[in-house]
Amino acid sequence: MKVHVGPVAQPELEAAVVAAGAELSPAADASALVWFGGAPAQFAELDHPGLEWVQLPAAGIESWVSAGALRDGVTFTSAAGTYAQTVAEHTLGLMLAGARQMHRMARASSWSRPEGMVSVFGSTVGIVGAGGIGRALIELLRPFGVRVLAVNRSGRPVDGAAATWRSDDAAGVRELLAESDFVVVAAPATAETAQLIDAGALARMKPGAWLVNVARGSLVDTEALVAALDAERIGGAALDVTDPEPLPDGHPLFQHPRAIISPHAANPMSLLVPALARRVEENVRRRLAGEPLLGVVDRAAGY
Amino acid sequence: MKVHVGPVAQPELEAAVVAAGAELSPAADASALVWFGGAPAQFAELDHPGLEWVQLPAAGIESWVSAGALRDGVTFTSAAGTYAQTVAEHTLGLMLAGARQMHRMARASSWSRPEGMVSVFGSTVGIVGAGGIGRALIELLRPFGVRVLAVNRSGRPVDGAAATWRSDDAAGVRELLAESDFVVVAAPATAETAQLIDAGALARMKPGAWLVNVARGSLVDTEALVAALDAERIGGAALDVTDPEPLPDGHPLFQHPRAIISPHAANPMSLLVPALARRVEENVRRRLAGEPLLGVVDRAAGY
Repeated sequence: MKVHVGPVAQPELEAAVVAAGAELSPAADASALVWFGGAPAQFAELDHPGLEWVQLPAAGIESWVSAGALRDGVTFTSAAGTYAQTVAEHTLGLMLAGARQMHRMARASSWSRPEGMVSVFGSTVGIVGAGGIGRALIELLRPFGVRVLAVNRSGRPVDGAAATWRSDDAAGVRELLAESDFVVVAAPATAETAQLIDAGALARMKPGAWLVNVARGSLVDTEALVAALDAERIGGAALDVTDPEPLPDGHPLFQHPRAIISPHAANPMSLLVPALARRVEENVRRRLAGEPLLGVVDRAAGY
Repeated sequence: MKVHVGPVAQPELEAAVVAAGAELSPAADASALVWFGGAPAQFAELDHPGLEWVQLPAAGIESWVSAGALRDGVTFTSAAGTYAQTVAEHTLGLMLAGARQMHRMARASSWSRPEGMVSVFGSTVGIVGAGGIGRALIELLRPFGVRVLAVNRSGRPVDGAAATWRSDDAAGVRELLAESDFVVVAAPATAETAQLIDAGALARMKPGAWLVNVARGSLVDTEALVAALDAERIGGAALDVTDPEPLPDGHPLFQHPRAIISPHAANPMSLLVPALARRVEENVRRRLAGEPLLGVVDRAAGY
């Protein structure tokens, strides 16, 4: 099997391809493409009739969807699941930083203790979109004795959650919002999840609760969020993703006393590449052995 | 038994005294004093010949020691152990905030990803002074698959640590410093631990490692630390305690790209009072039942 890594070359990923037993080649000769760097719109440059499989480098692939890259006749695999631990770690970091007001501490130039410190111990954590990241987060939260409430597409009970609702169960989602001290958004960006956290959802949240978005900016109505924070309606928001993204320079959320902006950094390049290399090696090995690939994209669902 | 809560009245602590079966009284009539608020130097105002037991509100009691409050004929109990979970939570928050550069994110007004992000997963965490806080931290770190190295006074193996050295084992302490990605200082402030983390200790730390001090400022040589951070010798420092404390306004550590200053906030009042009330109720109950008190101060050791 001939595999191309591109549009940007990446030595660790190329090494993973070779380690799995495949051969590196220019894009035009390759039956498989391991996407790295560049922009989804560049897909046309790398596409050719012999292309059978594309391994995308992201867990959320909506930018390839909207670039029209997911053409018929090619199997696309996302990196879903690959970064779950890394992103869950960042999520817990944002929860603790928010709970303990570390963003205000970081901004201070004098010794003054911020108000409003809370604890994750014994709290209720609602996970909207409890997939791989949610499961990894539940593991990290185990020692804190939290009560987990979950929403996912199937409604299939999530291990470690006290309750799981289907994402189309409006009453269930409302209950999660009303009871959670931390609302963690980790659902894929689809038409159904756009602006899931709008003014109405924010109004249902507990006073003092924190919203943590590690999914995509489109899931949260930014204007409604700023209004809720300005009104001190909720404890705060920690956003790894925003809408628009990047957030424009000087946007009020950057220095908002109730906000932490993490610039799409939950899965930094220094941790992403080694994790992706492991997935590439596994999927190339599976492809060569005729085994099912991990992370095959469901075109109908859009992720 | 007559108990006084002071020098500052605190309703939750008074309720705990009553719940345990004792009687509230003015200081002059009380055989027991539950210390809350004020300054250790005020001890003389509350002391009288009938005083038998003083419950202090802190885990680190060196300010009462230096104020000369620990007079003979009175049993003193500290709150050691009471705040371990709260402080361990803050410690993990500081570790994650440092590892993921959240302090730099919090200070930013534009969308730019900081360099130098690392993970706690699979790292080595050295705990200098592994008592109650250390044990609670080890519990929180379990899901991260870290290797824990510990130093304590006795050298008795700490549960969950790969190695435990006695605090007077210089070679062991050096090994901990050299191998840890995170060095957590949680030892009591005594003559032996003063400036434990000096220029020499900092020089032995791994490049990129983070120092987290949740003990007392006196354990770290501030000038040496600033020099090590300026020289980018270590990854960073997250300090809940400082020397001097409070850190003067505008001190370079406040906005240092490699430092997070948490203004003695690991155990905020909102979480401290309920935890202390539980300890007060338990110790009053024990005193009435003639059982051994929790947290009896060892005058020779100074904690």
